[in-house]
Amino acid sequence: MSFQNPVFIPGPTNMPEALRRAADMPTLDHRSSLFAEILHPALDGVKQVLKSKTAEVFVFPSTGTGGWETALTNTLSAGDKVLAARNGMFSHRWIDMCTRHGLDMQIVEAAWGAGVPTDRYEEILRADKNHEIKVVLATHNETATGVKSDIAGVRRALDNAGHPALLYVDGVSSIGSMDFRMDEWGVDIAVTGSQKGFMLPAGLAIIGFSPKAMAQVETATLPRTFFDIRDMAAGYANNAYPYTPAVGLLNGLKLATEMLLNEGLENVFTRHNRIANGVRAAVNAWGLTLCAQSPDLYSDSVSAIMTPEGFNATDIVSHAADVYGVAFGVGLGEVAGKVFRIGHLGSLTDVMALSGIATAEMCMVDIGLDIQLGSGVAAAQEVYRQTTGYTLKAAA
Amino acid sequence: MSFQNPVFIPGPTNMPEALRRAADMPTLDHRSSLFAEILHPALDGVKQVLKSKTAEVFVFPSTGTGGWETALTNTLSAGDKVLAARNGMFSHRWIDMCTRHGLDMQIVEAAWGAGVPTDRYEEILRADKNHEIKVVLATHNETATGVKSDIAGVRRALDNAGHPALLYVDGVSSIGSMDFRMDEWGVDIAVTGSQKGFMLPAGLAIIGFSPKAMAQVETATLPRTFFDIRDMAAGYANNAYPYTPAVGLLNGLKLATEMLLNEGLENVFTRHNRIANGVRAAVNAWGLTLCAQSPDLYSDSVSAIMTPEGFNATDIVSHAADVYGVAFGVGLGEVAGKVFRIGHLGSLTDVMALSGIATAEMCMVDIGLDIQLGSGVAAAQEVYRQTTGYTLKAAA
Amino acid sequence: MSFQNPVFIPGPTNMPEALRRAADMPTLDHRSSLFAEILHPALDGVKQVLKSKTAEVFVFPSTGTGGWETALTNTLSAGDKVLAARNGMFSHRWIDMCTRHGLDMQIVEAAWGAGVPTDRYEEILRADKNHEIKVVLATHNETATGVKSDIAGVRRALDNAGHPALLYVDGVSSIGSMDFRMDEWGVDIAVTGSQKGFMLPAGLAIIGFSPKAMAQVETATLPRTFFDIRDMAAGYANNAYPYTPAVGLLNGLKLATEMLLNEGLENVFTRHNRIANGVRAAVNAWGLTLCAQSPDLYSDSVSAIMTPEGFNATDIVSHAADVYGVAFGVGLGEVAGKVFRIGHLGSLTDVMALSGIATAEMCMVDIGLDIQLGSGVAAAQEVYRQTTGYTLKAAA
Amino acid sequence: MSFQNPVFIPGPTNMPEALRRAADMPTLDHRSSLFAEILHPALDGVKQVLKSKTAEVFVFPSTGTGGWETALTNTLSAGDKVLAARNGMFSHRWIDMCTRHGLDMQIVEAAWGAGVPTDRYEEILRADKNHEIKVVLATHNETATGVKSDIAGVRRALDNAGHPALLYVDGVSSIGSMDFRMDEWGVDIAVTGSQKGFMLPAGLAIIGFSPKAMAQVETATLPRTFFDIRDMAAGYANNAYPYTPAVGLLNGLKLATEMLLNEGLENVFTRHNRIANGVRAAVNAWGLTLCAQSPDLYSDSVSAIMTPEGFNATDIVSHAADVYGVAFGVGLGEVAGKVFRIGHLGSLTDVMALSGIATAEMCMVDIGLDIQLGSGVAAAQEVYRQTTGYTLKAAA
Repeated sequence: MSFQNPVFIPGPTNMPEALRRAADMPTLDHRSSLFAEILHPALDGVKQVLKSKTAEVFVFPSTGTGGWETALTNTLSAGDKVLAARNGMFSHRWIDMCTRHGLDMQIVEAAWGAGVPTDRYEEILRADKNHEIKVVLATHNETATGVKSDIAGVRRALDNAGHPALLYVDGVSSIGSMDFRMDEWGVDIAVTGSQKGFMLPAGLAIIGFSPKAMAQVETATLPRTFFDIRDMAAGYANNAYPYTPAVGLLNGLKLATEMLLNEGLENVFTRHNRIANGVRAAVNAWGLTLCAQSPDLYSDSVSAIMTPEGFNATDIVSHAADVYGVAFGVGLGEVAGKVFRIGHLGSLTDVMALSGIATAEMCMVDIGLDIQLGSGVAAAQEVYRQTTGYTLKAAA
Repeated sequence: MSFQNPVFIPGPTNMPEALRRAADMPTLDHRSSLFAEILHPALDGVKQVLKSKTAEVFVFPSTGTGGWETALTNTLSAGDKVLAARNGMFSHRWIDMCTRHGLDMQIVEAAWGAGVPTDRYEEILRADKNHEIKVVLATHNETATGVKSDIAGVRRALDNAGHPALLYVDGVSSIGSMDFRMDEWGVDIAVTGSQKGFMLPAGLAIIGFSPKAMAQVETATLPRTFFDIRDMAAGYANNAYPYTPAVGLLNGLKLATEMLLNEGLENVFTRHNRIANGVRAAVNAWGLTLCAQSPDLYSDSVSAIMTPEGFNATDIVSHAADVYGVAFGVGLGEVAGKVFRIGHLGSLTDVMALSGIATAEMCMVDIGLDIQLGSGVAAAQEVYRQTTGYTLKAAA
Repeated sequence: MSFQNPVFIPGPTNMPEALRRAADMPTLDHRSSLFAEILHPALDGVKQVLKSKTAEVFVFPSTGTGGWETALTNTLSAGDKVLAARNGMFSHRWIDMCTRHGLDMQIVEAAWGAGVPTDRYEEILRADKNHEIKVVLATHNETATGVKSDIAGVRRALDNAGHPALLYVDGVSSIGSMDFRMDEWGVDIAVTGSQKGFMLPAGLAIIGFSPKAMAQVETATLPRTFFDIRDMAAGYANNAYPYTPAVGLLNGLKLATEMLLNEGLENVFTRHNRIANGVRAAVNAWGLTLCAQSPDLYSDSVSAIMTPEGFNATDIVSHAADVYGVAFGVGLGEVAGKVFRIGHLGSLTDVMALSGIATAEMCMVDIGLDIQLGSGVAAAQEVYRQTTGYTLKAAA
Repeated sequence: MSFQNPVFIPGPTNMPEALRRAADMPTLDHRSSLFAEILHPALDGVKQVLKSKTAEVFVFPSTGTGGWETALTNTLSAGDKVLAARNGMFSHRWIDMCTRHGLDMQIVEAAWGAGVPTDRYEEILRADKNHEIKVVLATHNETATGVKSDIAGVRRALDNAGHPALLYVDGVSSIGSMDFRMDEWGVDIAVTGSQKGFMLPAGLAIIGFSPKAMAQVETATLPRTFFDIRDMAAGYANNAYPYTPAVGLLNGLKLATEMLLNEGLENVFTRHNRIANGVRAAVNAWGLTLCAQSPDLYSDSVSAIMTPEGFNATDIVSHAADVYGVAFGVGLGEVAGKVFRIGHLGSLTDVMALSGIATAEMCMVDIGLDIQLGSGVAAAQEVYRQTTGYTLKAAA
């Protein structure tokens, strides 16, 4: 495995050197006033990335999984009813966590490759006359299947049903890469991590709470200390933390949000879309299909590519690692062996993306797929050429 | 605050550049086989540092506080009885966590400056005829007071009482700096973090479970997912993690354990003792006393120094930060304003220690204490000169 | 210009992170004994890379140009006669330096794209009955044209002519990337720098002197101090330098030689040849030709690619930088505007090379060349697939 | 040797992390337009540090020694007459270089510990009726003896004598640390390097030429190519270099000048003076004396401290390195064994300086000098306390 090649896993991403350096800082006394100059801009930056005016943002030395647990334990009590859809490995895991914390789950099974079924959600919510459902879960981007769900649609389902349930969204592999509108979509808790759109090492759970979610904190009885946002909020109010913070990662998060906001969130999203379009053009040129069932579901941060019958998709990933020193993502759970994944989020250039496409192409040919070398690259090149913003001579 | 000066907080410590670089690694696919080459040596290295042959070691992207929660939630159920002593801020916080998780606490209040009262523990354990106490907590090194407690003595209390309770030890600011004998002392769970004796950035909870502690995991009903060691163990068995690991920090932990073991644990402890002796000689020369009540309690990783009546110890810390760019530790909780702390753990040289002592000296004089400039430095210099291992000419 | 993309200039190369870190070291007292532990292994390592048993190696804080000057000023006097061939920009510059130092130049003009004309050298040397020619210059790899000359052939020319002239070779862009045999080829002075095959930042001139070259040092009268190898040799004998050394770069050089020797020089050369073959296959697929006149002259460290009539090759380079953030090399001197150069030396992977080829392809299409997107990539992919050492399934 | 301790050699200095990072940059195409954004600000920054409006600044991948050679070879011809004083190792070496380049030296011998003898210079210049002396050399700060000479005084000597000779000043260990006024003092060539006041790794020769010096370039006949400022100037005019530049170091130089100018040059000089005053107070407390003969000669960048009869000063330096891992400077040339040197230039804090003083103290006691531990530290503490700018409580 060469550290000179880009990685194409759907996170952790390739890290810009500036962010690695921001995260790799010398020891700073986290009880000194300098810590505030890192902490508050990082929290404010996240809030802007979430497109929220009202959220309270909390950052824990943890991961997105810890973020899920923060959401649940701070707002719910054992036996509380939660509506969720299972359409991939990460929605599955959040459901599993709920179960282990004694929540009463109403689960909608969906195809791995489908989005969150907003119509079915609406039916269930309408049927819940007594408003027993406290929380609705939705995974914005199913990293396992490369499926982007319609969170605005989930909000409409709630509104159409006139249901007061809270809406908790896993935005781990979308926030910072794809459009996410916490306030506009009425998201009550948004969960993400440092190692995806923020382009940092893993190690931070990043969570935004709406005022409505904050209002649950005192009555929720699920036990928590490490993830208790009351201690965290008290710390922040004092420019501090309830325990030793991961200062370097917070410093990285501060810079990451500056970078995203300076580039402009819409530009960031457009950039991800461009890169993803190139990958999708390559998939099409190869005669393959995505796991995502329809174009409206295509994720701009990861593509899960179906391999033909008779081939184990995981072989492509192993082969890429062993022979070319390149990391792709394997299929997980129900789609294990059926898909391989190309992560294309974070700080990626056309040139880096092309090297990933070229490598996937070689691997597929090596293991016997009927793919023409250069075909996917050419399709992606065409996309990238046409969308650089550069006025081509041929067009002049 | 100059980043060129050493820090003298009791963790995070000054970080050797080799460890910063190990932690600051490029993105590695944590599902690749290379991850195993980081994970297992790190776990094995920790086990050796714990002086255990039988412990299972778990490392979470979290902090020592998360380590406490891991210990509790994986082995206990609401209402379980726990014996603990409160003799400082960190023992207090662990007790607070127990309470918030619904455990039935039997608390022994001790002076802030005293050690864990092993005699009192023994009395209570003897009195607990029905063995209702499931777990005994002990804080090996109270970072707030600079007090090292006698864990072997706690074990004797249990044994003398013939009590089967499990022994959980907070070794956050002792492990890797002061002698810790998990097997010999019959410690069932040992908790530490990355940012103290391991000289790394904060961000890892490091926990060792004895076989006896492991045996509790299936019956314990406190809810947990992020900190569930069953998921973690299943991950490790597969050279993986249940979620995205902090690969860089694990790589740093691997190197940190190599560094400690290559130096030799006893040499590491002797080195900490030497440095601490210099600091204590300075304190004595200043005519001041430590918060720790007697020499057997003196911590080799942090000294909490009592300031005379009429002075606010926190002023010394603020002044050092503002005027000299040096970070000391403030007093916490009951000893706030009464002590300031010099952390002297991790990778510290005589020369660095002397600069801390010299700075403390200037600060104390600046705020009006009757201290002679150079007096503490001279006392520490004498300690360091006599113990370098160098055969002095004068002695030849 | 993105720092995430590889560079494809013919030096400075892409730097492995390990070498960047070795070069970026904290201040070390260069008069301490630790300096010897860096200096001598670095010098010895270079000697092995030069394939010499007898050379004395000198390393100056300078560049290859300084290495040329070291060669001349330490062994020659004003008016001394020197034979040289001009077949590119770098051979031209060395000749210019000779002239400016008052040497009497006999210059053989050769086509830019041709190698050193060994037959013509032999004629001239045979004709020089009085052995007035003191030194013969040869540029092993003309970086400007991507032409590798036959140094063994130059040695044969000297031997066939029975001529005692010294042979000085510019190996700046060959040593460490392509086979170089100082002793076997009877090279008297070999010159290189840190930023090519050694994969380091620019900043070191690296020079090997044969015993025969060393014998000239006392009688040579060209003035020199900074580049005087006598001061340098005296310094080395004392584990020191005549002035402040670039300790970090020397530390990097030590590690670079270790990396090259651990990989095995022949493996390093084969790797460069593989990568270069892929680039050349792409050039062929594009229907273009190299500046190098024949396959025996093809350089494995840089390819200078001729663009068709009517196109300015420099536009490709500008376009790549402006639109795709990728650095290629422009044509220099006589071939300015006629060629663009792809550097493929140092630590490059197949995957990185493919991204360069894909980018060149897009640029050529963008500026209007009749090139098929993906065609060069496909040709290179085929080369890389067939030569990975991996047994392909299709072949099984 | 611990890399955690500060170094106290008179350069290379302790490097701020920001400068190490600026210097450690990824490969940038030095023929791209981005290079100009590094080069020109670096050159302009140096000009401001030199306090010159009219100088042309040149930066070579070399060292201060190369800077001396640049000065000589670009403006002089063999046989030209040069006036110089020898009062330490570095003035000696520049004289030696002149001799080796065939210049006709008129040397004024001065005590090692004395400054440049401006009166004697004036006499000689007055006596040189035919103005045969082309150049006067002066070493602003003799690093070997810790002596700062009076460059304004040398200018007055020239002016008083009505002599048109050029004035070349070695400011290697003064520029960026002590006041240097190129225009006001009529300095024609100023020479320095990257590893002193600029706090960077060694590897750059930095030279400023006055218009008068520039006017000599075409007529000077000393051979040069690498150090020819005409090639360098032509390169700069084209945003380029005549050969491969040390891009990272130039990037570091750009940032170093920004840091110095943002702090304010006068503040930088005051800071050096404060730190030096502390060291001198310690020397006085030890009952020792400086090599510099009188207070007006005391250098603010390095102190050369005389050891009493019967002690070898070099033992102190070896002992510090071996036992305490701290680097001081040995005595060189005539003062070898008689002095040891504490470098106190660059980015040094009070706290760092105190650790050096404390270490020197231990070493002197260890080898048997009659020094009281803590005495020098106390004297320096008093200086630092009184000059922090902080209003002491005692004084309030």
